[in-house]
Amino acid sequence: MEKPYVVGIDIGGTNTVFGVVDARGTILYSGSIKTGKYVEIDDYVTALCEGLKGIIDQAGGPDKIKGIGVGAPNGNFFNGCIEFAPNLPWKGKVPLAQLISEKLDNLPVALTNDANAAAIGEMTYGAARGMKDFIVITLGTGVGSGIVIGGNLVYGHDGFAGELGHVIVRRNNGRVCGCGRYGCLEAYASATGVARTAREYLEIRKDESLLRELDPDEITSKDVYDAAMKNDKLALEIFEFTGTILGEAFANFVCFSSPEAIILFGGLTKAGDLIMNPIRRAMDENMLKIYAGKTKLLFSQLKESDAAVLGASALGWEIK
Amino acid sequence: MEKPYVVGIDIGGTNTVFGVVDARGTILYSGSIKTGKYVEIDDYVTALCEGLKGIIDQAGGPDKIKGIGVGAPNGNFFNGCIEFAPNLPWKGKVPLAQLISEKLDNLPVALTNDANAAAIGEMTYGAARGMKDFIVITLGTGVGSGIVIGGNLVYGHDGFAGELGHVIVRRNNGRVCGCGRYGCLEAYASATGVARTAREYLEIRKDESLLRELDPDEITSKDVYDAAMKNDKLALEIFEFTGTILGEAFANFVCFSSPEAIILFGGLTKAGDLIMNPIRRAMDENMLKIYAGKTKLLFSQLKESDAAVLGASALGWEIK
Repeated sequence: MEKPYVVGIDIGGTNTVFGVVDARGTILYSGSIKTGKYVEIDDYVTALCEGLKGIIDQAGGPDKIKGIGVGAPNGNFFNGCIEFAPNLPWKGKVPLAQLISEKLDNLPVALTNDANAAAIGEMTYGAARGMKDFIVITLGTGVGSGIVIGGNLVYGHDGFAGELGHVIVRRNNGRVCGCGRYGCLEAYASATGVARTAREYLEIRKDESLLRELDPDEITSKDVYDAAMKNDKLALEIFEFTGTILGEAFANFVCFSSPEAIILFGGLTKAGDLIMNPIRRAMDENMLKIYAGKTKLLFSQLKESDAAVLGASALGWEIK
Repeated sequence: MEKPYVVGIDIGGTNTVFGVVDARGTILYSGSIKTGKYVEIDDYVTALCEGLKGIIDQAGGPDKIKGIGVGAPNGNFFNGCIEFAPNLPWKGKVPLAQLISEKLDNLPVALTNDANAAAIGEMTYGAARGMKDFIVITLGTGVGSGIVIGGNLVYGHDGFAGELGHVIVRRNNGRVCGCGRYGCLEAYASATGVARTAREYLEIRKDESLLRELDPDEITSKDVYDAAMKNDKLALEIFEFTGTILGEAFANFVCFSSPEAIILFGGLTKAGDLIMNPIRRAMDENMLKIYAGKTKLLFSQLKESDAAVLGASALGWEIK
């Protein structure tokens, strides 16, 4: 009999969330632990697997589980390791897939980075069902991407393909990025990037804005959103600027893989049309003619609170 | 018995060249016709197939042929059509693969654009043997690309993926491109782009150069190469500029598919180190750290006069 469930594990800097998921993308049982609490990887794996055993037993035991998928920052699909993740407690290369599998009756475990997990999630349960060529762009604290071509995730020769947040979009006078280079998409189009744009605009310009009531160093993308929803002109322009940079970049991405859709995922998508409209406009204005009007621009269809676990779990169906 | 040969057809605006090729990439028999002579597609196909029959018979007849591959501008792999090719005599969509197959005992025919054919050629007989992830960049009159991921050519959802010559690399004050937009890689890094750079430099700058002896409107990339080989400072700087733009663009491309190699193909590669050195430097300077030093930069290993036919022929091995 076909095994009916998979397990998804989403590892973030603060929390690790996990769940048993069925083929329709319903999370049946779930749990979480604090990632940051475990300085030693062995302690972390022990605590995690205890939690996993609990929900797997609820689901009827390991025989019901087809596979376990893990989404983690700097997760390498090829070797199942988390490699040099700056925001996790464990240094160097951590063979997490293997460590989990050993503790759970050798259930098969696959691991990839969170943006790739999101892409598989959209393909399995979300906006990309039935698509073979699409790109997921995650707009959160950073900008990540998961690229699917011919129905397969693109891992590249080393497992690290799809870092579209680090495509350089401004050659001259570009903002410094967390990666140490200048002008990366992430420095503009992440939630952090939106807040940086707000600080820049407030400093350079003199027009009134609701944002002037806030401490500039504390402004978040949420503040910009709230002001824009009150029709604040400066805040609206910040979304125009952000969306324009994204749309320009997307038109270039289309030249690479000519995807059926680009799917937006993550916190910044809550801005809805405020971000979608300028992206669409800039994409159209910058698109090579043979691609004009062909690539859909969509929002994720995974429920936000569940998205990360669903994405990771989708990898569980793909194993072998 | 496995069929020992394939046929490659390269369709250019001036000539159509074709040959019977063995598994080692040796062209055993070849021929050519003038593309431009045939205003009617039926006349063209008749003349082409007559030529093909001749070399196929020399090779022992249709039973020896595994398949026929065609490389053509605007060739769409999915439907076997040449679609709206500006430099060919036939307008609209031409179902060339089908027309050829019908005239040749229904031998299987596959068609793609010339840059994709070059990529399959490198994978089958050239610099990419054994590689599963690489990008071929063709530097000729224009800039084209063929992208291979996981051992398969990337066609995209519509068959037109891989137009990296039309990635916009200069947002501000970019040169107008043949596609009607501004700042495309092709406007800088093609043979034509090099000549344009030469004209710009000669006009803006006042320093001496061998290039000043030429009529600026007639300067070609070959002239710039010849001057650079005589150590002409301006000519050397033109290659520096061209290579820098290419290297910057390549570092961005690596963020997409993390290829094992980027392979340079076409006329401009005759410049050798003059173009390779600045590309390598700019690539290194702009590379995201996780990719540093991983992607090889190589020249094509297909003999230039044979490269186009070999590339197209390689598609013949892939059929079914």
